[in-house]
Amino acid sequence: MFEAAELGQKVSKAQYAKEEPAMREALLDAQYDLLQQKRRAVVILVNGVDGAGKGESVNLLNEWMDPRHLRSVAFGAETDEERAHPTFWRFWRVLPPKGKVSVLFGSWYTLPILQRAQKSIDDAALDQAMDQIVRFERMLAEEGVVLVKLWFHLSKKDQRKRFESLAADKRTRWRVTDDDWAHHAVYDRFRRISERALRRSSTGEAPWQVIDGSDDEHRALSMGRAVLAALRAATAEAPAAPVAKPSATPKSLRPKGIEERTLLSSLDLTATLSEKVYEKRLEQLQGRLNALSRDKRFAKRALAVVFEGMDAAGKGGAIRRLTRCLDARMYRVHPVAAPTDEERAQPYLWRFWRNAPPERQIAIFDRSWYGRVLVERVEGFCDEAAWRRAYNEINDFEEQLVANGTVVVKLWLSVSAEEQLKRFKEREATGFKRFKITPEDWRNREKWPRYAEAANEMFERTSTELAPWTLVAANDKRHARVTVLETLCARLEDALKKG
Amino acid sequence: MFEAAELGQKVSKAQYAKEEPAMREALLDAQYDLLQQKRRAVVILVNGVDGAGKGESVNLLNEWMDPRHLRSVAFGAETDEERAHPTFWRFWRVLPPKGKVSVLFGSWYTLPILQRAQKSIDDAALDQAMDQIVRFERMLAEEGVVLVKLWFHLSKKDQRKRFESLAADKRTRWRVTDDDWAHHAVYDRFRRISERALRRSSTGEAPWQVIDGSDDEHRALSMGRAVLAALRAATAEAPAAPVAKPSATPKSLRPKGIEERTLLSSLDLTATLSEKVYEKRLEQLQGRLNALSRDKRFAKRALAVVFEGMDAAGKGGAIRRLTRCLDARMYRVHPVAAPTDEERAQPYLWRFWRNAPPERQIAIFDRSWYGRVLVERVEGFCDEAAWRRAYNEINDFEEQLVANGTVVVKLWLSVSAEEQLKRFKEREATGFKRFKITPEDWRNREKWPRYAEAANEMFERTSTELAPWTLVAANDKRHARVTVLETLCARLEDALKKG
Repeated sequence: MFEAAELGQKVSKAQYAKEEPAMREALLDAQYDLLQQKRRAVVILVNGVDGAGKGESVNLLNEWMDPRHLRSVAFGAETDEERAHPTFWRFWRVLPPKGKVSVLFGSWYTLPILQRAQKSIDDAALDQAMDQIVRFERMLAEEGVVLVKLWFHLSKKDQRKRFESLAADKRTRWRVTDDDWAHHAVYDRFRRISERALRRSSTGEAPWQVIDGSDDEHRALSMGRAVLAALRAATAEAPAAPVAKPSATPKSLRPKGIEERTLLSSLDLTATLSEKVYEKRLEQLQGRLNALSRDKRFAKRALAVVFEGMDAAGKGGAIRRLTRCLDARMYRVHPVAAPTDEERAQPYLWRFWRNAPPERQIAIFDRSWYGRVLVERVEGFCDEAAWRRAYNEINDFEEQLVANGTVVVKLWLSVSAEEQLKRFKEREATGFKRFKITPEDWRNREKWPRYAEAANEMFERTSTELAPWTLVAANDKRHARVTVLETLCARLEDALKKG
Repeated sequence: MFEAAELGQKVSKAQYAKEEPAMREALLDAQYDLLQQKRRAVVILVNGVDGAGKGESVNLLNEWMDPRHLRSVAFGAETDEERAHPTFWRFWRVLPPKGKVSVLFGSWYTLPILQRAQKSIDDAALDQAMDQIVRFERMLAEEGVVLVKLWFHLSKKDQRKRFESLAADKRTRWRVTDDDWAHHAVYDRFRRISERALRRSSTGEAPWQVIDGSDDEHRALSMGRAVLAALRAATAEAPAAPVAKPSATPKSLRPKGIEERTLLSSLDLTATLSEKVYEKRLEQLQGRLNALSRDKRFAKRALAVVFEGMDAAGKGGAIRRLTRCLDARMYRVHPVAAPTDEERAQPYLWRFWRNAPPERQIAIFDRSWYGRVLVERVEGFCDEAAWRRAYNEINDFEEQLVANGTVVVKLWLSVSAEEQLKRFKEREATGFKRFKITPEDWRNREKWPRYAEAANEMFERTSTELAPWTLVAANDKRHARVTVLETLCARLEDALKKG
């Protein structure tokens, strides 16, 4: 992978002086096209070996392009807010909105490669990390982010020469650190590991481009060409083809003429709870949940609760029975409505990543990222390819939450169509503004079978061992609220037992 | 101030049971009005003595109201990101958008009162902190944020009784900490200081409301009434009257018939620099600035650079000469255009607070918070009262940046009307898309005298000793760019000398 970058190619100063102005002009033009179209974002990853000119390259990009619409970020030690969140949170928070460019100095590749080099993980774990990255980058690509992955390379001999020459000059001596020499000592190992990582993460939608760092002019022009190609792809009239055409799953595998049983239709909705039993159970469960939230072992964990269900399924009431037993400083409720324009300028999951709960915190979602495969699917707010790939994207997202110690509880409050009708009519009768029934509610109701179909497919595709769905019979509000609390207690207890 | 809260008022359980449901209903209704109108935001501050029921009250509010549109935040130790920013940054980041409610447990009052109690500041410094808070809260009020400032009080005797009773029960023993007893020992001092702080910060637009914490039911109903009144004020049809009518400053104090000299008109725009001198000076200055940015003393400082000026004054070019000599990881350029909808839902300065530079960072604003007193004033995008009070709000904002060690450099690039015309025509001739001249540019040009008037008043009102304006003669681009860099070097050197 690195051999071609060790051929010692050079560009003369004269050649550079001839090519550079035109490249610069072209880069600026393409950057302004990107900005005006506001259709895609560009992320440039700058990685590679020490001394290969990464820092210089980042500065050069800023010089060539308009720094007002380009942001360079270096990832040093995590801040404590970053540490309290899932690993990728720090990357999500610096993604550029559509029209803009981010240059990431160091990236999601840095940590796994470093960990492998320090032998704190093995090859299998490195591969796993690369697979996760490939899925993440595919998602970015599908969401309109163009990735430019640059690896700046130097042979071991060239690296030594470079360090020695920097160290010889008193003006640049400070740039060669003890760390640099320590890394140089394990160059071969680092190279082997990097090669493995690059091989596994070089994909059609986001290939690595290895840049020979030994000659300044050659390096600069190579980088410029790579970035220019990406900017042009990002501004091309035809949208980039989706990475893979989604394959439709058959609606049903059942033989004809047999009534299909689905998870939704099989749920027994007749369960009820008397007022008296309810009051007693509610108090017990709220006490239990309160104690769990104050458990010392929860300090390194977090909780994300998803409420989904048809309109009037009782989500609001269930949420209030839940928050009531928690310290108000521990939770945030996120009612999910139309995205803001800042959210619309980002990949779909960005608005949920920004609200991922940090350690010790509880995030409650009143509707959630599942909107993509429910309302957006049924109403046609996104194209079919987008919701079809969302299942895997969502599973990846939840896997990352879980990896951070977050307990992910997903609750579907299930009411029958008859019960919903009854509640709609009751609401119309009370006239409380907070229960206002809109024409949209009635329209959604007409699409009941399609929502049920979407929900059933959602359960099948996203009920994972890490984050299973719980279907809650909700025709009886008391039964639903108690079941919600029981589920939460059980899942939390389970997680805390595991430490 | 606290005497009335020590009269031992009680509400019987029966009375409470009678009043509570109606209050709850009213609170919910008012909360939904707030949400639907999206006209104002509500911030509830919960402060007071230990043991007076602050935590219980926050939880009660969450129980009474809809937790989906209310956010409770506790301010513990600062995170390292918060520490790197000006003190109030952590408060700005949790302000509710219009339509929503934030409950702040602890607030901007906590630190000054604590510091005074620990004798790390004197009365004068406490008073100064209160004055700053009063100005901050007035700004919030003018921007449509309704503040409810609740102080939960307990007499010394009641506090001891409360701690003893909590400590006696093994289920609540954990709630009384050593800190609580330590605070109790200095109760009298804390009370004296709090009283001083409250007295100085109880204003017409945001008065303190002291709540007797000794009786649970009385406390709950008092709080409910206070919050309800605020929600109703926030949703009342008539907008709250501005705190003070702005008084117009006379356009000029000059005797009639004498041509007025203004800062702008007095600036000598004829200065030029030859290409040769320019190249040499530029290189020197860029080297100097680069060294300053890497100076160890800069680690505890930050730099905010504001670029303002008429269209085509050369801001973009000057910014590029500046960023070129900086490490790309150290700076961010913020081109200021129309606010996003998240920004529009917040007080005016919110969008600039979110981009205040942390320690070691440089924030470059291509147009800035001065938009309020320039384009918004001239184009009528905000009412007169809003831009008139903006001068002081801006001075306060910059004072806070400076207090955090930030060097604030404000540059007005000044071109003559003739030079602007020349540049417009040149731009039209080149046809580069990035220099597109829009009809709006021509329209703005017609309003030149009004922009000049606004700029002159801006210099007068906001050129402070902490953050002075520098007018840069910019008819000659080379001269302008060199002057910009000279100013930055001089200001930074000055600041670093002070340590």
